[in-house]
Amino acid sequence: MVEISPLRTGADVRAAARAGELTGVTAGLAPGYVQANLVMMPAAYALEFLAFCIRNPKPCPVLEVCEPGDPEPRRLAPGADLRTDLPAYRVYRDGRLVERRTDVTELWTDDMVSILIGCSFTFEWALSQHGIRLAHIEQGRNVSMYITNRECVPAGRFHGPMVVSMRPFPPDVVPQVAAITERFPGMHGAPVWIGDPKGLGIEDLGRPDFGDVLDFGPGDVPVFWACGVTPQAVALASGVPLMITHDPGHMFVTDAPHAAYQV
Amino acid sequence: MVEISPLRTGADVRAAARAGELTGVTAGLAPGYVQANLVMMPAAYALEFLAFCIRNPKPCPVLEVCEPGDPEPRRLAPGADLRTDLPAYRVYRDGRLVERRTDVTELWTDDMVSILIGCSFTFEWALSQHGIRLAHIEQGRNVSMYITNRECVPAGRFHGPMVVSMRPFPPDVVPQVAAITERFPGMHGAPVWIGDPKGLGIEDLGRPDFGDVLDFGPGDVPVFWACGVTPQAVALASGVPLMITHDPGHMFVTDAPHAAYQV
Repeated sequence: MVEISPLRTGADVRAAARAGELTGVTAGLAPGYVQANLVMMPAAYALEFLAFCIRNPKPCPVLEVCEPGDPEPRRLAPGADLRTDLPAYRVYRDGRLVERRTDVTELWTDDMVSILIGCSFTFEWALSQHGIRLAHIEQGRNVSMYITNRECVPAGRFHGPMVVSMRPFPPDVVPQVAAITERFPGMHGAPVWIGDPKGLGIEDLGRPDFGDVLDFGPGDVPVFWACGVTPQAVALASGVPLMITHDPGHMFVTDAPHAAYQV
Repeated sequence: MVEISPLRTGADVRAAARAGELTGVTAGLAPGYVQANLVMMPAAYALEFLAFCIRNPKPCPVLEVCEPGDPEPRRLAPGADLRTDLPAYRVYRDGRLVERRTDVTELWTDDMVSILIGCSFTFEWALSQHGIRLAHIEQGRNVSMYITNRECVPAGRFHGPMVVSMRPFPPDVVPQVAAITERFPGMHGAPVWIGDPKGLGIEDLGRPDFGDVLDFGPGDVPVFWACGVTPQAVALASGVPLMITHDPGHMFVTDAPHAAYQV
């Protein structure tokens, strides 16, 4: 039996999160709409962070930047409030994860810059449109995410390792998977690695740093994409005074359709 | 007779510009290498300008951002100096074009942020690879560029009209031209307008705001792309204290190959 979520649009998901009715992951909700990773920080180092994103476009493709002090992403979701409309947030201070919250209004200051970063749910939508099966969806789990041994290109005070998401596929499907996802450069694009995880410094696929463990079918190959959780690894490594992000898997759901991001 | 330029690589072009031997346009030089639009400004408003670029990715696709005070684009051209390595610069102060120079070292301060923006020469290369003829190349001219009636999405103090470049093509070639250029989102991507220039507020194709007038073949259709000269129209409209740019057509030539930017 397939359950149809009553949260059909980005506005539905945001209203439920704002009302405190939704505090879980957003996978499968509002299936036609782009979801986004969130990073908020004081304007004092937002220029450096934007430079970091531009130097690392595969993990950090920027979809929208709000004015300092403005919590409304006016292009992707007019009327939304980034302080309340995600199901869950993480708060990083001085290089430590200090808190998980469902609302960050109390932490807001009028110099806060909010940045939305592309999310792999868009290319997952495209893969599904092509009839390609996704193991984590069929298993009812979140994707596996791993901190790699690949350093991002630093910018100002921002540095740290790239985080990747992993999805297993049968070998004959992998070429099409790479080709389809390449058409979404704003949503992490083509895979960064296909095959042996040791090449990324990942010792054990069964111990992800974020998300869930996935079961592999016989012969399945692990395929890795740069991941929008990277800024959270960067928050830990860089030790900036304050960075607020979404809680992994608990995304901001926009009003934009997935297909708008296909090149 | 086809003249082969002795300036075959980005490094050749940069060295000639640095030595003062090259002060003209860069079209046709170092044909395999990406050329870029340049924008320099104090760090105090560079965050706002980067937000402007992110909100207007068709005219302002960012290829690289340098650290404040660093004139070397370490990723696209290690060892280069953006203060000397372009054939010609424009200096905008308080919303006015005040000077044209071949070196901006004297204007440099240690808070200057340099931003490189994609250039249509890359998709022109791709069109040529597909055997598509470019009128301005055959006529030995620069493309025509026009200030349109389309306002860019503002960001902070930055606002102003979009500038477009125009190239004429026979009607049967236009679909392929659109499809090929769409594959280069970092280099302005697909056209923004095909046909009647009045829809962009352009009254007379024979009076471009930048570049040269082009001759049309019988039945040729004008095709318009968002253009990296847009920041210069924005400098005029926004009246920021200081913005240094390349002189239109006098680009920064990088070490990056065109094909690296094809999606």
